Amino acid sequence: MSGKIPVVVLGATGTVGQKFVSLLTDHSWFEVGALAASSASAGRPYGEVVRWRERSELSPKIGAMVIQPCAPPLPGAIVFSALDAEVAGPIEQEFARAGAYVVTNTRTHRMEADVPLLIPEANADHVTLIESQRRARGWKGAILANPNCSTAALALALAPLHRSFGVERLFVSSMQAVSGAGYPGVPSLDIVGNVIPHIGGEEEKIERESRKILGELSNGAVEPAKFAVSAHTNRVAVVDGHMLTVSVGFGRRAGPDEALEALRSFRGPPCVTELPSSPNPPIEVDGRADRPQPRLDLDRGRGMAVTVGRVRACPILDIRMVVLGHNTVRGAAGQAVQIAELLVAEGRVRRG
Amino acid sequence: MSGKIPVVVLGATGTVGQKFVSLLTDHSWFEVGALAASSASAGRPYGEVVRWRERSELSPKIGAMVIQPCAPPLPGAIVFSALDAEVAGPIEQEFARAGAYVVTNTRTHRMEADVPLLIPEANADHVTLIESQRRARGWKGAILANPNCSTAALALALAPLHRSFGVERLFVSSMQAVSGAGYPGVPSLDIVGNVIPHIGGEEEKIERESRKILGELSNGAVEPAKFAVSAHTNRVAVVDGHMLTVSVGFGRRAGPDEALEALRSFRGPPCVTELPSSPNPPIEVDGRADRPQPRLDLDRGRGMAVTVGRVRACPILDIRMVVLGHNTVRGAAGQAVQIAELLVAEGRVRRG
Amino acid sequence: MSGKIPVVVLGATGTVGQKFVSLLTDHSWFEVGALAASSASAGRPYGEVVRWRERSELSPKIGAMVIQPCAPPLPGAIVFSALDAEVAGPIEQEFARAGAYVVTNTRTHRMEADVPLLIPEANADHVTLIESQRRARGWKGAILANPNCSTAALALALAPLHRSFGVERLFVSSMQAVSGAGYPGVPSLDIVGNVIPHIGGEEEKIERESRKILGELSNGAVEPAKFAVSAHTNRVAVVDGHMLTVSVGFGRRAGPDEALEALRSFRGPPCVTELPSSPNPPIEVDGRADRPQPRLDLDRGRGMAVTVGRVRACPILDIRMVVLGHNTVRGAAGQAVQIAELLVAEGRVRRG
Amino acid sequence: MSGKIPVVVLGATGTVGQKFVSLLTDHSWFEVGALAASSASAGRPYGEVVRWRERSELSPKIGAMVIQPCAPPLPGAIVFSALDAEVAGPIEQEFARAGAYVVTNTRTHRMEADVPLLIPEANADHVTLIESQRRARGWKGAILANPNCSTAALALALAPLHRSFGVERLFVSSMQAVSGAGYPGVPSLDIVGNVIPHIGGEEEKIERESRKILGELSNGAVEPAKFAVSAHTNRVAVVDGHMLTVSVGFGRRAGPDEALEALRSFRGPPCVTELPSSPNPPIEVDGRADRPQPRLDLDRGRGMAVTVGRVRACPILDIRMVVLGHNTVRGAAGQAVQIAELLVAEGRVRRG
Repeated sequence: MSGKIPVVVLGATGTVGQKFVSLLTDHSWFEVGALAASSASAGRPYGEVVRWRERSELSPKIGAMVIQPCAPPLPGAIVFSALDAEVAGPIEQEFARAGAYVVTNTRTHRMEADVPLLIPEANADHVTLIESQRRARGWKGAILANPNCSTAALALALAPLHRSFGVERLFVSSMQAVSGAGYPGVPSLDIVGNVIPHIGGEEEKIERESRKILGELSNGAVEPAKFAVSAHTNRVAVVDGHMLTVSVGFGRRAGPDEALEALRSFRGPPCVTELPSSPNPPIEVDGRADRPQPRLDLDRGRGMAVTVGRVRACPILDIRMVVLGHNTVRGAAGQAVQIAELLVAEGRVRRG
Repeated sequence: MSGKIPVVVLGATGTVGQKFVSLLTDHSWFEVGALAASSASAGRPYGEVVRWRERSELSPKIGAMVIQPCAPPLPGAIVFSALDAEVAGPIEQEFARAGAYVVTNTRTHRMEADVPLLIPEANADHVTLIESQRRARGWKGAILANPNCSTAALALALAPLHRSFGVERLFVSSMQAVSGAGYPGVPSLDIVGNVIPHIGGEEEKIERESRKILGELSNGAVEPAKFAVSAHTNRVAVVDGHMLTVSVGFGRRAGPDEALEALRSFRGPPCVTELPSSPNPPIEVDGRADRPQPRLDLDRGRGMAVTVGRVRACPILDIRMVVLGHNTVRGAAGQAVQIAELLVAEGRVRRG
Repeated sequence: MSGKIPVVVLGATGTVGQKFVSLLTDHSWFEVGALAASSASAGRPYGEVVRWRERSELSPKIGAMVIQPCAPPLPGAIVFSALDAEVAGPIEQEFARAGAYVVTNTRTHRMEADVPLLIPEANADHVTLIESQRRARGWKGAILANPNCSTAALALALAPLHRSFGVERLFVSSMQAVSGAGYPGVPSLDIVGNVIPHIGGEEEKIERESRKILGELSNGAVEPAKFAVSAHTNRVAVVDGHMLTVSVGFGRRAGPDEALEALRSFRGPPCVTELPSSPNPPIEVDGRADRPQPRLDLDRGRGMAVTVGRVRACPILDIRMVVLGHNTVRGAAGQAVQIAELLVAEGRVRRG
Repeated sequence: MSGKIPVVVLGATGTVGQKFVSLLTDHSWFEVGALAASSASAGRPYGEVVRWRERSELSPKIGAMVIQPCAPPLPGAIVFSALDAEVAGPIEQEFARAGAYVVTNTRTHRMEADVPLLIPEANADHVTLIESQRRARGWKGAILANPNCSTAALALALAPLHRSFGVERLFVSSMQAVSGAGYPGVPSLDIVGNVIPHIGGEEEKIERESRKILGELSNGAVEPAKFAVSAHTNRVAVVDGHMLTVSVGFGRRAGPDEALEALRSFRGPPCVTELPSSPNPPIEVDGRADRPQPRLDLDRGRGMAVTVGRVRACPILDIRMVVLGHNTVRGAAGQAVQIAELLVAEGRVRRG
């Protein structure tokens, strides 16, 4: 017996599903208990079905696992969902009803009032929303949501600024990697030597989700932050890594020096900083004029750190900056694993 | 005799210089009178020296022209300058002193009070600045400046909005092509699969130059427009075409419908619309959700039209939009040729 | 009445179909008589259905045409087929039976003994195969096939060498553009910053088709050329343009100088050189050390010329060289239009 | 005291120099004793001078090291040279004369008869060439050379085939990454969305060096292998990783199955397999139809393994295959470190 906690991955064959499998291989607390996918794949060995796209090799042991259908019971108190939004809702609810902690990367439940939308360093306290969720829905388990991939990087970078100065207004323009669209995703004819100035639904997600994440817990509910967001989202010919240029206005005036100090000194709560997947620090500030860059800075904190650069005064609002986050790690599977670790650290899930 | 007006290209071997040569080949009013470059190249045939990078073939006749040194007299009343900023100042002044109209693509003289910074459709009347320039400097010729390449696209798209509603605040984030940095310019190791969130001096140029271009002529001087600009500039793996995401606030409230109407109906003054290089219309509005795109929309108006898309409400200011311009045509050589055409149309330069 | 010959495009909404529409707009001999596509699109205006990806604008007149189902009769004695291979066979046969000249870009009929596989400059005489085709099949019309896109460039470049020296052995390694796979085609995650060393079925097509194209007509049938081909095919992050590195061994020894002379002096037969789509010359030889390149040399002869460079001795066979062809023009729609022009020039199709 | 062996890096600020520094950080046997670069950099802290392009962070300790001039004595019995070929010759000789083992990545000495050109798994026995080198030149140290980056991958993949079947003829066409040209290296205007079919001197290096590497040691000299090579080299828009398509003919007929068996079972000599940098196995065979790919397979064996795929029959010679190697690891710094490890394992360099 390994003493590790078995976990389940739903939608294990897709881009984010593969990232989950990759991160869970040799994880110090978790081990893959089951891999589940659509009925077309169920019953066949994972290694035969998956078109493996991770740079690390697929472990033979995991490759030999037979894919399960996406229905409980499956061996694991924690269920990671990388399902398509079209099918995720009922499946995730079924697992939660059956007692599992479902950490979902899908947009379906993110904006529901009793579902915590989590960036552990920024709002670990929102986890307590699941108490009312379980009461209201009569579930033994719960659903916890990971934000949209570009929002994850943005909201983490904003967390210390909001805490210190109160974000009031925000302009953000993104340059997002093709892996954010999954596989096959963006046709190469659309993106080689090109830019696509549109990602369906993404601007609305950034505007809505960032307010919920940075909102205050009050009487068992989240009071969203009140800032206004003007977002532009673009797809560029980058494989991994979402870049965001941001201009921010605060409630309490602050310049680049104070912003830098807040960003540099930011740490999550102690229950988060100790987690295996938590980077230290969660925000890396880079002072070089031409950084961050996806190709050079993406792996900081093993993909879990957000890199902030070019913090400078804004001619209209308070500061301008550039934010880079790894969209399939901090923006998807990596942070979902971190959320699951938080559940273990808080004693909600028992170790073997 | 061709009856065409001979013109000179300074810095003819570089990226912008080649674009000048390409556009002047078979131009209906102009013909290349002389090609000039650094002393290292002078005296040798153009076709032997130039590392020709245009998709159109170099004409044998032009390839056989012997490169001249960058000093007057050279055969041409109009001199196009694609010189490096490091050397441009004294050379351009020398030609202006000797009687030439120098249309320069270099930043050196752009912000001088008596040098017009021109986008013909937007501010053809600024040409009259050269009267005071000639008086003050005692020149027979004059210097007229082309804006920075990203500013050219931005300010043209803003012109109808500023005229109709009064631009007050502006957030702009660019995704700029590598050709904007010339040759050899951006190392491929820096940009393949990557984004560089910094272009030296570019943000300041956008902020300063757009205010001068959209300023009012008053008592023989330009009163800069008073709007505030917060700019972020980025380099992406695109060969040609600068994309800009823009959020704009107006003095007089206006929504997407009014903005669209202003953009669609915009035309330059009659003296400009008739010029050979003037696109009709100068601004093309594209209503498709994922346009403009560099690869598909760059050649509109033979590279002289700016394409605007995704005009929509802004949660903070009035509208958001995406602007695309061809950085070496509208943003450099093409517009410089258009400015020279304006000088001819106004009778300042006589046709053969 | 325009006096132009109406033609039909089958599969008009796809990548090659769009290229047909683009090339037929303002064609001097042809006009679009009907656009046909799958039943899902039939009955709707072309402009509403097509996701137009050409750089030239879709003409409003063509955009307004209602898409027809892919079945005769449709108004046009010439039918261009850009259908998927899965469905092309019976549809193309039905049109040929009904009397149309079907010029197909699909692989389905290419290797059938009585179907000419044409590169007009190389084997215009193979057109006469359709006589036996019509007799054998009892058709009023006929099917004529365009080669695979990489084969088209290769076989055209080989034609003068084979004619002069007799090709015996051939090593070819390709670097092919993503447009060759259609739309959506190659996922961007597979190709951004990457190379894929495999294109399904492509190596076999190059090996088989090039021998048929360069074969001799004898007793109303094609005797394939006897050379052996070892092909490697690769996909690279280029939008348009297939590059081929080639080592060739001849039956009669010849070096680079003789090969260059053969390539430079090559012309198609007079009936071909006069066609509107025929480039002059069909093969452009570039002597610069680093040419051809897709980005710079693709548009030669409006995409119909093949560019050959780096002709040099081979340490094993006779010569080595690099070949570039435009895969959607010479390798697909452009050459299909040229084949149709040949039918008109030969009097097989009557002008209005 | 660390007990580690101090080593020197010449040309430490360039692309390959940085890779050396990255690989030597936390190396189990070596530690950086000195970093040397041109006189323009000497005297300044490495971290201030270098434009660090590695994805791993520069260690503060190494960043603080003061750059030395490229002249002995410097603290280290092993000297890695990443110098430009223009200056490398005299400097490397001076260090060898002064007693250092110079492992050079530069082409200067590669083809000299008494300089071993090494791929440890393939020809570790060639190290003994340095005995005659020292005698002939009167040096206390020696120069050992690393092959050209594309040759390194090719010759390693050929080693088991040559050993088993005797390579006689070889066609190779490369698709090489931009990092192979160093920094700034290839201008982005030349390679974004493009292919360059020429790399200066590369084809000759492949042809010459592969014969020396796979040659036999006989009477204290290397008798080059006798096979003929026809090479085509191309640059593609890939950051790291050289791909090679190869057709090979053997002296003793062998098909894909025998070739696969030879490739799979290949191991270096025991003195090599135990080295810290040696991958196990050195050649990874991938049976998937579309592999290897630079983006997915480059890191195998931490960049030291070569991946071979698509081993299949050749219509002309014996087999065809695709070879991928990491050009700055196996093709440069990584293998140079492995060579130095071999010197230690053989007792030529003493451990602390």
